[in-house]
Amino acid sequence: MVRKASESKVVIRPHFKTHQSAEIGEWFREAGVNKITVSSVTIAEYFAQAGWKDILIAFPLNILEIEKINSLAREINLSILIESTETAEFLVENITSKVTLNIKIDTGNNRTGIWWEDTDQISAVIDLVKKSPLLQFAGFVAHAGHTYHAQHTDEIVQIYNDTLKKLSHLKAEFSTGDINPIISVGDTPSCSIINDFTGIDEIRPGNFVFYDLMQYKLGSCSLKDIAVVLACPVVAKHPERNEIVIYGGAIHLSKDSITDSNGSRIFGMAVKLLEEGWSEPLPETFVKTLSQEHGIISTTKDILSGIKPGDVIGILPIHSCLTAHQMKNYFTLDGKQITMMNS
Amino acid sequence: MVRKASESKVVIRPHFKTHQSAEIGEWFREAGVNKITVSSVTIAEYFAQAGWKDILIAFPLNILEIEKINSLAREINLSILIESTETAEFLVENITSKVTLNIKIDTGNNRTGIWWEDTDQISAVIDLVKKSPLLQFAGFVAHAGHTYHAQHTDEIVQIYNDTLKKLSHLKAEFSTGDINPIISVGDTPSCSIINDFTGIDEIRPGNFVFYDLMQYKLGSCSLKDIAVVLACPVVAKHPERNEIVIYGGAIHLSKDSITDSNGSRIFGMAVKLLEEGWSEPLPETFVKTLSQEHGIISTTKDILSGIKPGDVIGILPIHSCLTAHQMKNYFTLDGKQITMMNS
Repeated sequence: MVRKASESKVVIRPHFKTHQSAEIGEWFREAGVNKITVSSVTIAEYFAQAGWKDILIAFPLNILEIEKINSLAREINLSILIESTETAEFLVENITSKVTLNIKIDTGNNRTGIWWEDTDQISAVIDLVKKSPLLQFAGFVAHAGHTYHAQHTDEIVQIYNDTLKKLSHLKAEFSTGDINPIISVGDTPSCSIINDFTGIDEIRPGNFVFYDLMQYKLGSCSLKDIAVVLACPVVAKHPERNEIVIYGGAIHLSKDSITDSNGSRIFGMAVKLLEEGWSEPLPETFVKTLSQEHGIISTTKDILSGIKPGDVIGILPIHSCLTAHQMKNYFTLDGKQITMMNS
Repeated sequence: MVRKASESKVVIRPHFKTHQSAEIGEWFREAGVNKITVSSVTIAEYFAQAGWKDILIAFPLNILEIEKINSLAREINLSILIESTETAEFLVENITSKVTLNIKIDTGNNRTGIWWEDTDQISAVIDLVKKSPLLQFAGFVAHAGHTYHAQHTDEIVQIYNDTLKKLSHLKAEFSTGDINPIISVGDTPSCSIINDFTGIDEIRPGNFVFYDLMQYKLGSCSLKDIAVVLACPVVAKHPERNEIVIYGGAIHLSKDSITDSNGSRIFGMAVKLLEEGWSEPLPETFVKTLSQEHGIISTTKDILSGIKPGDVIGILPIHSCLTAHQMKNYFTLDGKQITMMNS
């Protein structure tokens, strides 16, 4: 991802909400990354503590956290997102340290942001921001999260191109002698599938650090790219219905699910853990239901017969961000622990 | 729940996985509870530390945790669950402290347990258990979790009666001069709707401490019985589609959902936070989607117009066990913090 960004001459500001680990952050630093994205003030504080000096909180400003934001902005180059004149007015009144300000733009995801065509509101926000010398307007940030509903990688390419077109339009419209707004995009499906980011100033993918089954289903990655697995002890087996019960439930994997090619809702795929990593997914084997601590794996008679209580099965997660967040710890293949925020 | 148990002359062994708080545990102690249920060895260790002396780990024994179990069993009256001869054999070989042993019985939930009619396997487990003087067989534990799929409270009553019938049959079959096995049931829907537990020895409801929208939908509780709410700051609003964006996502509420009366999948209902508690759910207002940290509330034009960024909205959770587990902290209405395991 760093190489692709470099080839396209765009800044890479990876999202660290997926791994939430200072140690994994160092792998990015070694690859030349020095700007990062996070999803909360708390995660920003954690990575600031770990020595990161340029952090974007890619979440609409929660004005109740203004004290923490002012305090953090005294220590690092902090970038924040806003999407309304109310919040801009609040900032003008309450900001006490220099921050970089971005406007969140909705290009079709319809989650957050000012609709890209609503240039009146965008202008109004920029005008307000100019009132405070502490607020430095940087540009337009979008998250084309509607790529997560794409049925095919072609559709992801279309959404990316559409996002680029809309943001480029804004960039042109709001470029003046004083201001040359950047445009920043973020979703892992687009950033994985697109190779040439010409026209964009910054990319902010996050999930690609581990990938997961949702990304695999979308076509963002291959199964071999999935770099994290949940190790789950087998606690029971039920040959009468070809099911394995694992210690691994909703509080470990999260309740995110995908629909597999047979139309079944699945909560993970099972792999065999090996010395050097793990196997391909076991055929016809998937996590069919999750309770708080239990997972039920549906499998075949053959696979079931080779498994016994006390074995440890690997589960490829549907959504690695949520699984990592819940587990709060990693182990490398050689058994070294990697800590996270709140480990 | 304590009064109902007492009137039916059954033991109440509440499940503490919902609240995971030593301080909330004390409220139960004051109500006369002295036996508890938990879902993992880790939670058992936490409550043993908090002075609980009689704890059932209601999860099929994970043999990889045998050392912790032996260690805990030296300190308290520890009860465990098994459901296979393999695990029974392992225990006979590896147990070093006295533990109380229960057999998990499947009465129709099809998650874990030996099928209630498979008396050969039940006998085989009991015979194995007799080989170790450290293993004390207590009885049969069932979780009729299929009540969570009931369409009506009548169906919950039917499932309860069916469970009672099946377990009573086992109790009669395996009662001898030496052994008088107990029968224990656990799900909150049954325990909420049934008033007379005659014939049962022990009940293990947990979720009733807070209840939630899933229980409300099942008919286990009224909306006023829901005793926990997630306080979520408003970070943006979108009048063009009557949506509010809150800081409150999948890592706070969990991704559990229910289908509301209009057929929409919902992830929570919104209430107004008041000095003395909270309002009824706001009409036509619900959490429609969740990302990692964002929640999107769908609402009406009128309600939207009365809300601004920086307001705090209450969200009644779908599944309070998962929400509490993820938040790791409570505040009472008078602002006092209540800590949990891993606070």
